[in-house]
Amino acid sequence: MDAQLDKLKFDSNGLIPIIVQDVENDQVLMMAFMNREALDKTLATGKIHTYSRSRGRLALKGESSKHFQHVKKILTDCDRDVVLFKVVQDVAACHEGYRSCFFREYEEGADDWKIAAKKAFDPDAVYKK
Amino acid sequence: MDAQLDKLKFDSNGLIPIIVQDVENDQVLMMAFMNREALDKTLATGKIHTYSRSRGRLALKGESSKHFQHVKKILTDCDRDVVLFKVVQDVAACHEGYRSCFFREYEEGADDWKIAAKKAFDPDAVYKK
Repeated sequence: MDAQLDKLKFDSNGLIPIIVQDVENDQVLMMAFMNREALDKTLATGKIHTYSRSRGRLALKGESSKHFQHVKKILTDCDRDVVLFKVVQDVAACHEGYRSCFFREYEEGADDWKIAAKKAFDPDAVYKK
Repeated sequence: MDAQLDKLKFDSNGLIPIIVQDVENDQVLMMAFMNREALDKTLATGKIHTYSRSRGRLALKGESSKHFQHVKKILTDCDRDVVLFKVVQDVAACHEGYRSCFFREYEEGADDWKIAAKKAFDPDAVYKK
């Protein structure tokens, strides 16, 4: 039982949106969802765990890649229905090889989003192991 | 019609989560949802518009307070199902008077989240006008 966590508002599916931000340079790394179990596990281990809606299960972020997110600070908003984690990111957050999942930038008049970052690692090498 | 916006993935309720970040210091200001209409209006006006799930309608951020968010940069993530806006924030983002909605910090062993920021304005003065 954690009184502070009990005050958070989960949605009708038992989920709460979370934002993960790099504690070193404040870059937004990703957005995901947690259920209460993922939140408890994140606090117990100090590593971000999410609830994967596509896989329908708890997932340790970095499980395959070993690119873990180490929690340093936890904040919530005025409505207590979003949680912001400030983390130390191992290597990179995105499974496509970028430091942040937000690597696509809107460019006025263009047909597609442009890639606005350079890869931090080669996904083929990391995930084929 | 905007080809880039057409590539975004809205959920089964027609909504997409958005993160608003201060372009000047990278502080995360708030998290909200947009439907396609809110997104189109945001791009047309350069000011953040959200879809308010509680009020069930489009809302111009800062409508009452005049604390608008002026869009400078738009990013999306690998899955194209979250949008990150970098903005110039007028005065403050939070209706409780704080610069960022994320003003509550988790403190180990405490009964409640602690207030980790100072107010930027007095909500009673601003909203009673």
